[in-house]
Amino acid sequence: MAALRASSLLRPATRAARHPTVSKLPARAFSVSFARAASSLFPEEPARPTVKTEIPGPVSKKYIEDLHEVFDTRSLNMLTDYTKSIGNYIADPDGNVLLDVYAQIASIPLGYNNPALIAAAKTPDMVNAIVNRPALGNFPSHDWASILRSGILKAAPPGLNQVFTAMAGSDANETAYKAAFMYRRQQERGGPTVPFTDEEISSSMNNSSPGAANLSILSFKTGFHGRLFGSLSTTRSKPIHKLDIPAFDWPQATFPLLKYPLDQHVAENEAAEAASLAEVEHLIKTHPAPPAAVIVEPIQSEGGDNHASPAFFRGLRDLTLKHNVLFIVDEVQTGLGATGKLWAHEHWHLQTPPDMVTFSKKAQAAGYYYANPELRPNLPYRQFNTWMGDPARALLFRAILSEVRAHNLVERTAQVGAHLFAGLERLAAKYPDQVANLRGKDRGTFIAFDSPRRDDVLKTAKTLGVNIGGSGASAVRLRPMLVFEEGHADILLETLETIVSS
Amino acid sequence: MAALRASSLLRPATRAARHPTVSKLPARAFSVSFARAASSLFPEEPARPTVKTEIPGPVSKKYIEDLHEVFDTRSLNMLTDYTKSIGNYIADPDGNVLLDVYAQIASIPLGYNNPALIAAAKTPDMVNAIVNRPALGNFPSHDWASILRSGILKAAPPGLNQVFTAMAGSDANETAYKAAFMYRRQQERGGPTVPFTDEEISSSMNNSSPGAANLSILSFKTGFHGRLFGSLSTTRSKPIHKLDIPAFDWPQATFPLLKYPLDQHVAENEAAEAASLAEVEHLIKTHPAPPAAVIVEPIQSEGGDNHASPAFFRGLRDLTLKHNVLFIVDEVQTGLGATGKLWAHEHWHLQTPPDMVTFSKKAQAAGYYYANPELRPNLPYRQFNTWMGDPARALLFRAILSEVRAHNLVERTAQVGAHLFAGLERLAAKYPDQVANLRGKDRGTFIAFDSPRRDDVLKTAKTLGVNIGGSGASAVRLRPMLVFEEGHADILLETLETIVSS
Repeated sequence: MAALRASSLLRPATRAARHPTVSKLPARAFSVSFARAASSLFPEEPARPTVKTEIPGPVSKKYIEDLHEVFDTRSLNMLTDYTKSIGNYIADPDGNVLLDVYAQIASIPLGYNNPALIAAAKTPDMVNAIVNRPALGNFPSHDWASILRSGILKAAPPGLNQVFTAMAGSDANETAYKAAFMYRRQQERGGPTVPFTDEEISSSMNNSSPGAANLSILSFKTGFHGRLFGSLSTTRSKPIHKLDIPAFDWPQATFPLLKYPLDQHVAENEAAEAASLAEVEHLIKTHPAPPAAVIVEPIQSEGGDNHASPAFFRGLRDLTLKHNVLFIVDEVQTGLGATGKLWAHEHWHLQTPPDMVTFSKKAQAAGYYYANPELRPNLPYRQFNTWMGDPARALLFRAILSEVRAHNLVERTAQVGAHLFAGLERLAAKYPDQVANLRGKDRGTFIAFDSPRRDDVLKTAKTLGVNIGGSGASAVRLRPMLVFEEGHADILLETLETIVSS
Repeated sequence: MAALRASSLLRPATRAARHPTVSKLPARAFSVSFARAASSLFPEEPARPTVKTEIPGPVSKKYIEDLHEVFDTRSLNMLTDYTKSIGNYIADPDGNVLLDVYAQIASIPLGYNNPALIAAAKTPDMVNAIVNRPALGNFPSHDWASILRSGILKAAPPGLNQVFTAMAGSDANETAYKAAFMYRRQQERGGPTVPFTDEEISSSMNNSSPGAANLSILSFKTGFHGRLFGSLSTTRSKPIHKLDIPAFDWPQATFPLLKYPLDQHVAENEAAEAASLAEVEHLIKTHPAPPAAVIVEPIQSEGGDNHASPAFFRGLRDLTLKHNVLFIVDEVQTGLGATGKLWAHEHWHLQTPPDMVTFSKKAQAAGYYYANPELRPNLPYRQFNTWMGDPARALLFRAILSEVRAHNLVERTAQVGAHLFAGLERLAAKYPDQVANLRGKDRGTFIAFDSPRRDDVLKTAKTLGVNIGGSGASAVRLRPMLVFEEGHADILLETLETIVSS
């Protein structure tokens, strides 16, 4: 195994690292004087991180050894004791308690052991949902409409009022793709009442055209939309995700990789966005498997926190309307408030809402929103599976949304994000080689920057009590929860300064 | 919409209905004298069904109308009040209480509102799992190994001792396919330490060979393995599942559709099984996208409850070993006891266990079991996603398994199944045109028969207080829970006789 190195596979194939120089930081102990984190929502939250041992420590190592016998632990980041984790702090069995700005790959919305969510988990409704899991398409409960209206649909993006529920981000995207394919073929066929031909019916059973449609989903290079077979065919972030897995020959357009600081690269960035849109239009017009939909992340997350301007996304929306291609916005990572809006695409001020918006992660439930009634396939059982979602997670989403609204956590995240971004701007000015391409201004706490020694930064941060994730080739990816406050941001900033100044 | 008829799309394209004659049964009320259902596990279960209104009744109709505004209800079978459902009985808001032998498409293991599962749902562990959902690949909890060992892995099929956890049956199968593809390419490459070539890395990012492998999964006609893009490419049950969805050009072999009664068609059935195996071998040797694995259901469920002999499956296992193709057994519907064994493939007495066994439904958790350490991909993050399963559902599976063992429910299901099968044999002898091709002998309660008026039988059964599902073109599919007892079987038998004798 020694001859095999994973690192190159984890980097985007289509984007050169911004910082070729890599310097090594010794993994020694640091002495940091932390600010007081004054959490208004978690009075029992610790004031600061505690690092008692190396991570993993001796107790964790024993657990990991045991787990590895039955479960692959090679991607293990930190063995966690969730019973001891609280609010923004993640704990391990060795007594280490870290400020967590990775949050289970951006999927914990309101802190560990949030009292409001614990209360929701103890309700008779939740117990009922856990023990009596329905086949929602066949046997929905009498209160399913009420659960949807008071939760998932209450969070629906502007202009969308329907939902198809799923299990996680990958199948949320894939069922959205299926809806797009059925819609497109229905249009080509002449409408919802035109029956399938015998040839379509028989060829569908042989996985061949015309029954199995020769259509595609257009996605962007460095984008990530999941790892099942359809979603993986649209994922273009890293070779490690894709190697050896059969894929559909679907088109990919270049994502406009902006240069920073933005105000110093206005013309270049506009040109990059225009070129990307031109490529999209060219692919829509010429690809041998015509795209039924374009899918895009508001901020490419796994692929390196790549942003584009609202004007770019409006242009993309216009193109899809012009060419009668559906527009799917993948808000699996950006959704639910972290960008300072409930949905990141609200920053774009679209004239026409997306056709579908997919969600998962912080919602703790998954699926896609839509509005056009023709996106319900023309016959029942075309978009169907046994569980079709999970009422237990829908109840949790409702409790999350209620808490988000009660404490104005989206607005708070915008404020805290501005504080954090300002602090990072100071670091970027002071250590321009270490904190580069700072991005996420006015996008809440959904912030990233590039580091020439990214993997060391993440590793060292952990020894200093902060759990941070990476994305793409060189990005330090900040994904705090919605209960992250200025005091937490100050601990993060001080820790980062300790690292980048060393 | 009037011109469009769904019925033909819901029938297998590759199998003619066994009974061309369809007679109509008037949907009138019947007077049935029910046997007393003596449930030993649910003392509060009703003694018999109650049908107070048409189904859906007036209250249900209002709920359905409301739900339809935001959620597709065209596949709705029965609006359910789970709070009033108990044991083997499913209730609706109109006061109807039906004996349920469909059980949420075969996915409720131990009855509605099972007290042991309610107790499990109220534990601090469950509350913790609901509110602190981990990214299992990165941040597993300290007790994750213990949860696996005391639950999911305690149920592992003979010879298998590892698990990769998933969300539902479709992604359980798809992640098993991915493991198969990575394993096969690794063998072709020369082992786990041989690095990927530059061409593989770059072509993978373009969805093209060799990086995106030109390999396939071989499945059987009339089989069902899920409805996402990879799993749907192996699903061959009904056009309605597949129309308009792009699919991989993967091979399909004919499933040996046996003739009944088995003892009168020994030679024909042996010939059909031999022909099927020959076809599998031919496809393995000649298909342009070589199969990395063969996937098969022990009993094709969605496709019509199609059985084959243990000898056939042993032959299939031998073929896969001979040609170095992996053998995946899809136990999503057959698993967890309903066939009178914990895993249906235990009926085959294989010399070499399957390479992977997938599960979901009654387990309430999902994933695939395996044993070969090389089925763990050679590098981390190759088989990975954010949640990678759900500890809440793993805890529920543990409680289910514990209850199954405490009450010997697998053995009980074998006994009750024998009682039910004997009763159906009597009906088949008395009404041979109405109860045809009875199958599932010695397979617990996993029993089906064909009816020339199947859809009417299901509809009428509901008016008589029994909720039954169908499968394939003409099968009445019985899928009782593991808490189904002789008394319930007698109610079912009496109801069926009322219908078929009319």
